[in-house]
Amino acid sequence: MRLATFRRHDDEPRVRRVGLVLGQGEHVRVHPFDVGFDLVELLAESPEWRDSQADVAAGGDGLTLDEVVLLPPVYPVAMRDFLTFEAHVDGMERGHGNPGPPDAWYDAPVFLFMAPHAVTGAYDDVPMPPDTERLDFELEVAAIVCRDVRDVTPEQAKAAIGGYCVMNDWSARDVQGKEMSLKLGPSKGKDFATTIGPWVVTADELDDARDEDGFLDLEMTVKVNGEQVGADRSGHMGWSFEQLVSHASRASWVKAGEVLASGTCSTGSLAESWGRTGSLTPPPLQVGDVVEMTIERLGTIRNAVAEPEDNVAPVAPARRRSRLEASA
Amino acid sequence: MRLATFRRHDDEPRVRRVGLVLGQGEHVRVHPFDVGFDLVELLAESPEWRDSQADVAAGGDGLTLDEVVLLPPVYPVAMRDFLTFEAHVDGMERGHGNPGPPDAWYDAPVFLFMAPHAVTGAYDDVPMPPDTERLDFELEVAAIVCRDVRDVTPEQAKAAIGGYCVMNDWSARDVQGKEMSLKLGPSKGKDFATTIGPWVVTADELDDARDEDGFLDLEMTVKVNGEQVGADRSGHMGWSFEQLVSHASRASWVKAGEVLASGTCSTGSLAESWGRTGSLTPPPLQVGDVVEMTIERLGTIRNAVAEPEDNVAPVAPARRRSRLEASA
Repeated sequence: MRLATFRRHDDEPRVRRVGLVLGQGEHVRVHPFDVGFDLVELLAESPEWRDSQADVAAGGDGLTLDEVVLLPPVYPVAMRDFLTFEAHVDGMERGHGNPGPPDAWYDAPVFLFMAPHAVTGAYDDVPMPPDTERLDFELEVAAIVCRDVRDVTPEQAKAAIGGYCVMNDWSARDVQGKEMSLKLGPSKGKDFATTIGPWVVTADELDDARDEDGFLDLEMTVKVNGEQVGADRSGHMGWSFEQLVSHASRASWVKAGEVLASGTCSTGSLAESWGRTGSLTPPPLQVGDVVEMTIERLGTIRNAVAEPEDNVAPVAPARRRSRLEASA
Repeated sequence: MRLATFRRHDDEPRVRRVGLVLGQGEHVRVHPFDVGFDLVELLAESPEWRDSQADVAAGGDGLTLDEVVLLPPVYPVAMRDFLTFEAHVDGMERGHGNPGPPDAWYDAPVFLFMAPHAVTGAYDDVPMPPDTERLDFELEVAAIVCRDVRDVTPEQAKAAIGGYCVMNDWSARDVQGKEMSLKLGPSKGKDFATTIGPWVVTADELDDARDEDGFLDLEMTVKVNGEQVGADRSGHMGWSFEQLVSHASRASWVKAGEVLASGTCSTGSLAESWGRTGSLTPPPLQVGDVVEMTIERLGTIRNAVAEPEDNVAPVAPARRRSRLEASA
């Protein structure tokens, strides 16, 4: 089952409706559930109950994609981005002059907490962020958590994953690089936009897309201005999503409404090419560029880079301690 | 005005009430607001309206601290930890063999997003997290955001800061170090507990605690098992909280209910001593140790390190790509 969050063009901007997605290509229709249905709660229900509600929704008129604005399927209560694709790590490390992934990468699935309020919809424009000349994308699979869990095994974690969607973790590489030199990880380098969508495909729908170890194995591609620049398979992750949830839950809460992302797949970003080749080829994204990401069975998101916001406040340098000591 | 979130011992575990804190020392009393009052919403109201509601609450019976469980004042919708104390950065960098803060530190206030669901109350025990032999604390000031803002100047940011509290950003240094070697910043090294409390002191209450540049200037101290091990002043931050909110809001949302923390003050952690001296002195925290943090006018939090949880799942190493390629 595919579940979208949307509003109609003439709805108030704060309206969020949940809809059942039926059909393919130009025949896609969004069939609204009744007001009050919550996407994360639907994911936590049994497939049978969800099906019964979907039957009701499917009986009503459907809306074409032209009639709706697709919103981020969820506004996450927290967002984690992992680093699970060995070949991506290899490319990035070579860009730093290292021979490949450090040993620590293989030991446990590392992640960072991301800006949860930066999510944008499947077809939204993304304004060029400030202070960057190296705007990049990251092609990822994202899982939507539908139950609160703590200290769960991968087997137990399965019931906490409600579904999956496509994610573009937009990244300002020069801003990010400076931040990472201070060892806290990226923050402003990635807090301006994270596109998730176009909708959530429920986990039960994808049971036949798992490999022999139970890893979700879907083809992932990314195009810039219509030309394919990257492709990989989610089966190349070093850990399954169930293992990611289990690891995140060790002595800590993973809560319903969280989004956990795979990290960038191999060739799923420009920076990996920059790392491997030592040159800015393909070039960083510019205003007007269109990035299109497709994951088999999950759908396509497509976003144009728009003009920057013009009201960004300047940044003040630190008040130095030495100045205080001199005046004391 | 001081505002606490609490429940009585015989309330259901999910009950969260807001109370007005009056009195000092053993005369402290928590006077409940009516059910339905929300702490962040109270912070966003005018001081006059808040005072009128506080007058009503103050008219009722107060509860002693023995009669209540102090909860985290807020369950953050996002949590950011900055790195604003120059002398702390200096100590940590020396621990990495560097001569002092890198130039990039002075340019802009860097931060990371933290685990938002790990907050614990002012007097809660903190279980020893898994996989660590280097448990540490971090003494910080935290600001509670009460309005959604984006692209605001420091002057505009002032109205978005509802109040302040004490924060202990518990840290497993060995886990954190391994994670930071992978350049994403700490995650599991800090996701098991973040203590905030004991209550929120509203920003208007602290106008006379600002220095000539408008920086909040409060004495901060930390004791381990009753012995003082660190002390600093919040006026030694490199940026004011208004500057932190402004920076975070550049082309990005900072939302009501977020917590923004100062980062560790100088001598506000054991790791800084370890960095400066090259030895584990004072020693890492052990089960039974009690960490007590006091910030002038904000109050005291006090937490014991408890036995670890015994049901933590094992971590699986990565499924290596090379294995897949060999079998293809």
